[in-house]
Amino acid sequence: MNKIPKTVSRRLGLYHRCLKNLTSSGKRNVSSKELAEKLGIKSSQVRKDLSYFGAFGKRGVGYDTNYLLEMVERILGVNKSWSVVIIGAGNLGHALANYDVLEKNGFYIVGIFDNDPEKIGQKIGNLTIKDIKEFREFVKKNNVEIAVIAVPATSAQEVADIIVESGIKGIINFSPMTINVPKGIIIEEIDISIPFKNLTFKLTGNEFRSA
Amino acid sequence: MNKIPKTVSRRLGLYHRCLKNLTSSGKRNVSSKELAEKLGIKSSQVRKDLSYFGAFGKRGVGYDTNYLLEMVERILGVNKSWSVVIIGAGNLGHALANYDVLEKNGFYIVGIFDNDPEKIGQKIGNLTIKDIKEFREFVKKNNVEIAVIAVPATSAQEVADIIVESGIKGIINFSPMTINVPKGIIIEEIDISIPFKNLTFKLTGNEFRSA
Repeated sequence: MNKIPKTVSRRLGLYHRCLKNLTSSGKRNVSSKELAEKLGIKSSQVRKDLSYFGAFGKRGVGYDTNYLLEMVERILGVNKSWSVVIIGAGNLGHALANYDVLEKNGFYIVGIFDNDPEKIGQKIGNLTIKDIKEFREFVKKNNVEIAVIAVPATSAQEVADIIVESGIKGIINFSPMTINVPKGIIIEEIDISIPFKNLTFKLTGNEFRSA
Repeated sequence: MNKIPKTVSRRLGLYHRCLKNLTSSGKRNVSSKELAEKLGIKSSQVRKDLSYFGAFGKRGVGYDTNYLLEMVERILGVNKSWSVVIIGAGNLGHALANYDVLEKNGFYIVGIFDNDPEKIGQKIGNLTIKDIKEFREFVKKNNVEIAVIAVPATSAQEVADIIVESGIKGIINFSPMTINVPKGIIIEEIDISIPFKNLTFKLTGNEFRSA
C-alpha cells in the first residue's frame, strides 16, 4: 500500500463516518458518485482517494462498503479500542462522557477527573468522578492512551503538564487555549467556536469571500 | 483586497483564536515567526496569508495585533454578534449553552429547545428550555440567524427540517448524521469523534502514515 498523502488522510474521518452510516443501514455497495455527494467532493477525487486504500470499485456495482470500512478503520487505528480519560467534569466533560458516538468508534471513556471537592465522588453514568490527585496512578494501572482536556482555558496548561507527566502520548484539547507540550506528544485541538466562525464566514458572503 | 483562497480561509479561525489570546494578554505586536509557531505552519506561509488581509508587518516590530484581529474579525463576520438557538437540551446542549467561548466570539445563545416535557420549563443559566413547538414563532420574533442541532442522530433530519422551515439559513450540526437541506442553507458539521480519529491515526504511526 502506498503512503497516504495528508490531503487524503484529512478526509479519512469523513469516509469513516459515511461508511459507518452506509453499512449500518445495510447498504452493501456504494458508488464513487454516491460517496462524492455525501462528502461534497468530486467522484474522480473519491476514486483517487480510495485507490490509496487499495480499494477498486467495479463498474456498475461500485465498492463493497464493508471491505472499504474495514480498510479505513485499519488505517485510522480505530479497529482497536482506546482507553480515554477526561479531565474536567463540567458540562463539556459530562457531554463527552455520555457521547455514545465515541464508544461506537472504539474510544472508551474509562475515567473522569476533577479537582472540585463537590464534584469528586459524583457519578456520570457508570463512572465516578475521581480526584485529579489520583490521575497518575490511574493512568498507569489502566493503560490509558488518550486524555481529553475539558477544563477552562486558565487551567488548560496546568492540566496538560499533569497529562504529559503521566506518560500519556495523545491529547485532545477542548479548551480555547493553545497549550505547549514536549516533542513526541500529539495534540488535537478543538475549538467549538471555529465551526461557528466558518459558518458566519459563509453566511456573510461579503467581498472577502473566496470563489 | 484580494479574494482569499480557501486554504487561507480555513486558517482564519486559527488566526482569530491566536490573535484574541495575544491581544487579551496585552501583546501589541507579534512576529510572523511567533504566529507560525502557534499555528504549526511556516512563517513564510503566515506572511503570505496575512498579505491577503492587507496586513504587512514591519521588520523588527512585526504585526500590530489589534489591527490584525480587527481585520480577521471583519473577514470572518464575527465583528457583529449573532443570535443562536440550540435544539436539544441534553448534556451537549447544556455544555454549549454554558460555553462562554461562543459568547466571547459574538455568538449569543438566545434560546434552547427540546421536545421532552420533563426538560421543557427547566433553566440553563438565564435560559428557559422551550417547547420545540414554539420554535418557528421564536425564530421570527428574535431574528435568529443560526441553529445548532444537538439531538441524537435519529432525530437530526427531523430537526433540520424544522430549522429550514423556520427560515434560518445557517446550521451547526453536532449530530453524527449527515443531514440533507435545500440549496442556500449552509451547514457546518461537527463530529466529535473525528479529532479522536485524527489523533489515533497519528498515534498508531503505522505503515499507512504519510510523511
